[in-house]
Formats: sequence, structure tokens, C-alpha cells
Amino acid sequence: MTQTVTVLGATGSIGRSTADLLTQHADRFRVGALVGGRDAAALAEVARALKAEFAALADPAGGPALAEALAGSGIPSGAGEGAVMEAVARDADIVVAAVSGAAGLKPTHAALRLGRTVALANKESLVCAGDAFMRDAKRYGATIWPMDSEHDALAQALHGRPLADVRTMMITASGGPFRTWTRERIAAASPTEAAAHPTWSMGMKINIDSASLMNKGLELIEAHHLFGIEPERLDVVVHPQSVIHGMVYWRDGAVTAELALPDMRVPISHCLGLGDRLEIARGRPLDLVKLGALTFEGADEDRFPCLRIARAALADGGAAPTVMNAANEIAVAAFIAGRIGFYGIADLVERAVTHFAGLHRAAPADVEEALAIDAEVRAWSAQALPELRAAG
Amino acid sequence: MTQTVTVLGATGSIGRSTADLLTQHADRFRVGALVGGRDAAALAEVARALKAEFAALADPAGGPALAEALAGSGIPSGAGEGAVMEAVARDADIVVAAVSGAAGLKPTHAALRLGRTVALANKESLVCAGDAFMRDAKRYGATIWPMDSEHDALAQALHGRPLADVRTMMITASGGPFRTWTRERIAAASPTEAAAHPTWSMGMKINIDSASLMNKGLELIEAHHLFGIEPERLDVVVHPQSVIHGMVYWRDGAVTAELALPDMRVPISHCLGLGDRLEIARGRPLDLVKLGALTFEGADEDRFPCLRIARAALADGGAAPTVMNAANEIAVAAFIAGRIGFYGIADLVERAVTHFAGLHRAAPADVEEALAIDAEVRAWSAQALPELRAAG
Repeated sequence: MTQTVTVLGATGSIGRSTADLLTQHADRFRVGALVGGRDAAALAEVARALKAEFAALADPAGGPALAEALAGSGIPSGAGEGAVMEAVARDADIVVAAVSGAAGLKPTHAALRLGRTVALANKESLVCAGDAFMRDAKRYGATIWPMDSEHDALAQALHGRPLADVRTMMITASGGPFRTWTRERIAAASPTEAAAHPTWSMGMKINIDSASLMNKGLELIEAHHLFGIEPERLDVVVHPQSVIHGMVYWRDGAVTAELALPDMRVPISHCLGLGDRLEIARGRPLDLVKLGALTFEGADEDRFPCLRIARAALADGGAAPTVMNAANEIAVAAFIAGRIGFYGIADLVERAVTHFAGLHRAAPADVEEALAIDAEVRAWSAQALPELRAAG
Repeated sequence: MTQTVTVLGATGSIGRSTADLLTQHADRFRVGALVGGRDAAALAEVARALKAEFAALADPAGGPALAEALAGSGIPSGAGEGAVMEAVARDADIVVAAVSGAAGLKPTHAALRLGRTVALANKESLVCAGDAFMRDAKRYGATIWPMDSEHDALAQALHGRPLADVRTMMITASGGPFRTWTRERIAAASPTEAAAHPTWSMGMKINIDSASLMNKGLELIEAHHLFGIEPERLDVVVHPQSVIHGMVYWRDGAVTAELALPDMRVPISHCLGLGDRLEIARGRPLDLVKLGALTFEGADEDRFPCLRIARAALADGGAAPTVMNAANEIAVAAFIAGRIGFYGIADLVERAVTHFAGLHRAAPADVEEALAIDAEVRAWSAQALPELRAAG
């Protein structure tokens, strides 16, 4: 029995790994719609390779280029928000939600409203509007399979048992490229140094978030929503080898965990298989003897203040995570552009959270409100940047 | 809803840990029958503490002493095989089968025949007569919960998913006290040195088996029967901290595992809870940051030939594991008594397996046949010992 898979974010890092798996298991999967951002040529290439039923580009200006690149393939296509929503509305057994950033909120939410099984890789859906997403998933009968390696690991370690038996849930952090650096050296780090992730191969933004440990903060917020677990029962441990991804600490003292060499295809295949295990060609088996040791350290919130800020936002709840995420996006872009130093990221985010604490208290009631707060915070943050630089 | 628990082997190491948990969770459990071996005073003490419904001593001569020690408690008692079988026959929701050695076969099998839920800690049931035990468990509708930390870990890591998705199942070995010793030094080791287990607190026989890695060989044989997995999909890794106990390697490259500080109450409580997690008073939570590192090494079958012998017996199947286990018991006793050196254990076991390979091929059809082979091999091994010493 084949299953139809739609991929939102087909040309990104997760999308390409998903395409690799769909190609390997062509007997099991049909490819429905593919959605890309701005790269018409890349989208057309993957749509041809996967024999997709429909291709949509988010950028409305890319329509002609996409149609031309697909000429002769017989694959219908479109561009702009209407085409993206048409892609989501097409019949699918599994929707891979891997659009990155706030742009992923609307199509991901539309898939949930259709009651789809959603393999969720878009962090912002849960960070910016987690309450609304989880409420609507329940209301419309949608199922969410977390596609992050950490949350997939937690799901595997929890394996459907009740939260009442859980003491804590723990995710691991590689510690990033600055794990062993002093505060002074981190303060002077360049974007290239910050983007050099030690274990995972990912995009620039997420690499910077890994260097600041903001990424782990975002993942704690995601875990809170995905599993319905209280902030105080969530924790992070630094584990430089990135082999254990998540652990459930049970109240009897046992700990269940999922391990794998860093390869996004492992959690993706677990989601695509809906729990069945798919063979992965050219996968790297875990060899613990070859690795020799798995090591663990505490997470240092002094050198990595973004983790502290994210934990506080998670504990505060309401709109704090939405605000934090928007300010962080602006701050990371400014850091990459050389406009602020590495600790300028935490500075800007903390200022934004403080500034908006009195303005937006309640969690966004829906996607529109989350996007409105997101836009407001981005505008404020961009305006606050020169001031920050002058002060810093 | 309380559950009635009967404990076979109530005065041993597993029995005492079980008693601790039953006392902690007195609201959840009633104690049915308790069975001890020879120590009437110890059995009476635990029976009084747990308010057991019946106490039976295996040693028929201990009846009067037990009755006297229980005087005034109102707890009926008996001694000898009839009393043990009466204890097994009493109504119980869970039977903890923790009699050690071949003496555990009959009462454990009797509990299976009654279709009981059996928490299995008696290794010999599966090593000596695994085919017959698993067949009869199925035939009589009994459920087996493995109580060894390694097999409980495998059950938690497998969490009911199909074997078709599994690549391998891995159990860990502490490596024992001789892990870093040369072959020459091991050859000259004393029983006291061999019994100094680095991580677990257990009995003398099992400590020696841990030093020789025979214990891991026995556990591989148990895992084969418990999970119905082929010998070639079972493996051992040396992990000196004894924190990860068992791992399931899935065909997608993911690995699920169970971790806990070495404390037999963790797997016991998981069995008693039938999957529910029971709080354990005075339990030690796992602190990976404090531990710092989990390390892994290959198992060296040159320095630890018993592991090689056990793997061969598992691969050969039939009566080979039964023969191996009986010879090992005699050999370990001879080593403890100072009659043979450490490598004399492997020598005797290998001779026995070779000698009996032509005599007993098929797996024992029932407990009686397993016990007959066991007795025959013990007699042969005892007789072969002086010869071995002269040759060695």
C-alpha cells in the first residue's frame, strides 16, 4: 500500500534528505505536492526526480521560471501563496512540514486543519504559536510526528507511555563550536567560526543558533508543546558526540534513550514510516566501540546566555517565546552581516523580551496573531540594532 | 487494585530487593507465597515482614525450624518439594522466579504451566531448557517478564515493535574485574580477585561468571529465547560503567536503549509494575554530567574464552547450552574451592561440550530431560576435574 507524501520546503536541507528517502522507497511512497521557496530550478529538478503530482513556489515572481523548468514533464505548477495553499490542500497521507522560519506557519497550520498526519520540522510553528497549533491539531484530528532528531528521540524513548510515569525529559546539545571557548574568545567570534557546527550538517541560521545554544532553547519550547510536559520537567545536557539525542527519565530511575550517528535521514525515515523502520541506503551504523566514549557536561548559561533567556521565556509562557524567536532571527541576521558581535544576539533578544513583556502577555490565539507579533518584534528589533551597537 | 505476588527465591539477592519494593508499595501488592532454599530463619523473617500468606522451604529437613520461627505469626508453612509446589499453586497475579541454579527449573516451569505472569530471574530455565520453557509459556498462556537488567533493557528498547525492523540486539558487559588484565595475570587470579565485581552487587557464582564473561554468554542464550531472535543478531559490547544495559539496533540506523545506575530494583520494579513505573525510595538517579563519560570496548574472546564457548553453544543450539551450563557450575565451584585455576573453568566447559556433543544433540524436550542432562554432565565434570588438574 503506497502512501502519498507532500513536502513543504522541498529544496531545503530537510527536503533534500526527505527526497533521498522517498527515492529509496519509491515502492512505498507516491509524491504528492512539493513546495519550494524561491529556487525554481531546484524545485523543478526535485519534482522531476520524484515524479511529483504538483509543484508550487512560494515566491509569486517565480511562476514562469518554474513552469519553464518543468516544461515537458507534465507536472502542473504554480507560484505564490495561493499555489502553496493548493499544494497543501491536495490529498496526502503525510505532509512533511519543513519550510524554515515564520513562513512555515501558515502552510503547516493549513495541513493541521485538514486533519493530516504532519511530520513537523518547522520549529517556528511550535515556538511562535505552540498553544494554537496543538489545540488545532487536536480539534481537527491531525497527528504530529516530530521530525527534529531530539524530539523524535523523545518520542521513541517515551513510546506512548503516560507522562505521569516520567520524571524529566532530556535533550542533548552538541555544545556547538564554542563549547570549550572562554567568554572573551566567544565575544570576538566571527560568523564563520560560529557557523562551523561540530557534528550536524545544517543551514547557516540553525548553526548560529547551535553556537549560542538558542537552538536548544527553541527545542525545549517545542518539546513542551509536543509532549505537553511542564517546563520544569525539561532539561538539556551537553553531549559533544551528538549520539544520544533525547532521553526520558522515568520515576523508577530507568532512562530510555534514542541514539544514532548525526544523520537527519534517521528521524525523517521514522516519521515517513509512521513508526515502521525503513532501511536507509548509505546509512552509517552506530559503532560504539569505534566511538570509544560518549561524554556529558552541564550547559553553561553564563557563556551561553541564550539558553537562559529561552528557558525563562518557556517558563513565562504567553507571547514570550514568540517575541524571543523573532528578535533572535533579526539578531542572528545582524551577526551574520557583521553588524553586531556574538553576544549582541543575546543582548538584543533579552531587550526585546523585556520590552514586549508588558505589551503582549497572552499566547497568540492563532497563526495570524503570532505572525502579527512576529512582524512587530522584527520591526522593533531592526530599529533597536543601531542603538544596541552604539551601546555595546 | 492490589496484586498478589509470590516470590520463589525470597531469601536471595533478587528476593531481598523484591521484598524491599513490595514493602515500599504495600498499597499495591499483597504477598502470596514465599519460597526459600535452606535458611529457615531468613525466610521466616521476610515472611513476617511482608505478611506473606504461606512460606515454603525447599530443604525438607528445615520444616520444624521454619514452623518454629513463624510461631505466633499465623503464617502457614511447609518444607520440601511438595510444599514448594503448593506455594507455586497458590493464586498469584505475578510469580517472581528468582530461585538460583537448576533448582529453579521445576517451580518456574510449574508457574508457567499455570499460565501465570512470571517475572523471570532464574537464568537456568532458559539456558538449560529454553525451547521447552518458551513453548510451554505459549501453550499455557503464561507471560514472561525478563527480570535481568540486560533483558529488561532489551524489552524496554524493543517496546513491542516487530523483530523484522531490528538489525541486532546488544547487551552490555561491565568487563568484570579482569577487563584490563593480561592473560597471564588472569591465569593466576584468585577466587577473591575474580569475585570482586566492579559495578554490581551480586552473589559469588554470578560474580565469577561475570569475571569470565560466561555470564554474558548465558544472557545471550536467554535473549535468544526471550525475544525469539537468531544468535547471529545478538551481540555484546563491554561498557565498564554498566549504565547502558541493553540496546536495540534498528534497521534505519536508530538505536534505542535503557540506562540506569546498577540497581536490581530498577528492572524488578519494572516487572512488578507490569510496565507501570514504580517510584523507588532511596533510588539513585542517573546523573550523566557527574559520570562524565560512558565508554565502550570490544569483548576479547582470547582473554575471555567462556564468551566464545557460550556463543558457539548458542549457535549450535540443541543440548549444548544445557551441557555448558552444568559443566560451568562444577568448574566455578572447583575454582572457588581452589582446585583449578581461572582458565581451568573454560577448559572444563569446553571439554564437556565436546564430549557431550555426540551424546546429546537435541534440545531437552522438557524439564525432566534438562535436569537429567544437567545431572549427567555434572557427574562427568566432577570426575573429569582431577584429570584436568593433572593435565593443566
